[in-house]
Amino acid sequence: MRVVVALGGNALLRRGEPLTAENQRANTRVACKALAPVALEHELVISHGNGPQVGLLALQGSAYTEVDPYPLDLLGAQTEGMIGYLIQQELGNELPFEKRLASLLTLVEVDADDPAFGDPTKPIGPIYSQEDSERLAREKGWVFKPDGDSYRRVVPSPLPQRVFGLEPLEWLLDQGCVVICAGGGGIPVMYTQTPVPAGRQLVGIEAVIDKDLASALLARDLRADALAIVTDVDAVYEGWGTPEQRAIRRATPEALAGSEFAAGSMGPKVKAACSFVEETGGLAVIGSIGDTPALLRGEAGTVVTRDAEGIELVDVA
Amino acid sequence: MRVVVALGGNALLRRGEPLTAENQRANTRVACKALAPVALEHELVISHGNGPQVGLLALQGSAYTEVDPYPLDLLGAQTEGMIGYLIQQELGNELPFEKRLASLLTLVEVDADDPAFGDPTKPIGPIYSQEDSERLAREKGWVFKPDGDSYRRVVPSPLPQRVFGLEPLEWLLDQGCVVICAGGGGIPVMYTQTPVPAGRQLVGIEAVIDKDLASALLARDLRADALAIVTDVDAVYEGWGTPEQRAIRRATPEALAGSEFAAGSMGPKVKAACSFVEETGGLAVIGSIGDTPALLRGEAGTVVTRDAEGIELVDVA
Repeated sequence: MRVVVALGGNALLRRGEPLTAENQRANTRVACKALAPVALEHELVISHGNGPQVGLLALQGSAYTEVDPYPLDLLGAQTEGMIGYLIQQELGNELPFEKRLASLLTLVEVDADDPAFGDPTKPIGPIYSQEDSERLAREKGWVFKPDGDSYRRVVPSPLPQRVFGLEPLEWLLDQGCVVICAGGGGIPVMYTQTPVPAGRQLVGIEAVIDKDLASALLARDLRADALAIVTDVDAVYEGWGTPEQRAIRRATPEALAGSEFAAGSMGPKVKAACSFVEETGGLAVIGSIGDTPALLRGEAGTVVTRDAEGIELVDVA
Repeated sequence: MRVVVALGGNALLRRGEPLTAENQRANTRVACKALAPVALEHELVISHGNGPQVGLLALQGSAYTEVDPYPLDLLGAQTEGMIGYLIQQELGNELPFEKRLASLLTLVEVDADDPAFGDPTKPIGPIYSQEDSERLAREKGWVFKPDGDSYRRVVPSPLPQRVFGLEPLEWLLDQGCVVICAGGGGIPVMYTQTPVPAGRQLVGIEAVIDKDLASALLARDLRADALAIVTDVDAVYEGWGTPEQRAIRRATPEALAGSEFAAGSMGPKVKAACSFVEETGGLAVIGSIGDTPALLRGEAGTVVTRDAEGIELVDVA
């Protein structure tokens, strides 16, 4: 099978853990132990989140005031470098020397007319006082929203429209190479509408792309057989956090479309899994990073498939 | 021809310019206009420096004190992401849409016995007071050397021994893809000597690798026909900065070995060019980024070749 595994931020950094280099490396190592058998059995593409990391870079950039903070496309590219390296190195340590791995930077096109640009919702970077937020809004045109007593910058999270560079990815996969790509949902770019003869130019955009939706698009366009969205939770739950919570074992995209899941958490994962299954008929599965091999056999997590009987629940053990 | 073009830090940021995102993008655009015809005519691999960028990331990491600064392998990986993205995007804008480009993260092995580890010389990051430098030396084991009235952290700059991941590079080049890689001389890694059965593990190293030497190694191992080391100076000069300065038009490696060039500047470029020519008999050339197409025809810059008559000088125009 050709599989895309999307590593959630919580698979690379445990909730509440400080964002140190050591913690990231240790968690990446654990994740890679689960990915190694998948790399040996399947054609494997690994994507990953970057939320905490891009937030830290924004904080560091704000703390050092001699140079203006860098825009989000550059910070996203930095995180693709850093996290891609950690995954490539730690997964390489779990695999035979002959197995090849490559980490590619990935540009993802977004649409200038995406409504997200008119309604930025994704908070990034530090918290600010009202005074500072108003000054920065004037100076830089940034948008702020209240966060408790403080303010945070919010940025657009437009839908991914196209993953660039699929052919190089295919060439590497055809050679049996593990490919790490589309980190953080890819670096958001857009075509400008400049006059001929200069032609259209691709430019970076101040936005962040949901990595699960980008991974679903990537999996579809690579004609992957399976998309595994892995995190630190073993399945999608109905009634999550309530005494009645029950894991969803299998479900159709249609049945899941009728349920509500947390917007910043399971929501995009479910949406991405459903869109992959709807568009390709392939297997999508959501579950725990440690279960990745079992997830791809359909033996763990929440399997999204056209063949389920609506929503099939199991009681929590 | 298969060519490796090593972009110097001064080709991506003019001397003395602030390290803003805008300046880097503008200079990268100029560099990519010179590289575009090369991409259309030859198999092209692009490497690049990262000195100013890795220094800025170290400064930003020191300014934000909530999380310990990241080690140099992670910062180097971040710069590979950021600079690789800028080059890929700006060069892509200069090329037909059908031309494929890929930016790969590159790990480069260094030797634990390299004498550089006993004599760190490469200054990075901010300047410190004597008191702060002594405290950091105690807390983190960092090494400091005086820099005027202040102190700066110095790190080892070991020789590159092996570029990992050459097969993926070859596969992409064979398909006509432009490859951007080995940024900042590559991410320095080393094998630990752990007992069986865990086997040897590749770990990141607190060091920086000279990008010209890494590019020469890369060019040799990719069996490149030519290595172009490009910067903001049009050639290597004898008597640089003196009234008698004269550009070197052509020279043999043996003849250059007898001359002295600035350690942090032309020295490594000349050394890298000579080693490539000595080991492969190929063409190495050092000159200005804007002249890159002419450099590769041997019509500009300083050509290092076995066929020169010692050192052939020209008067400055």
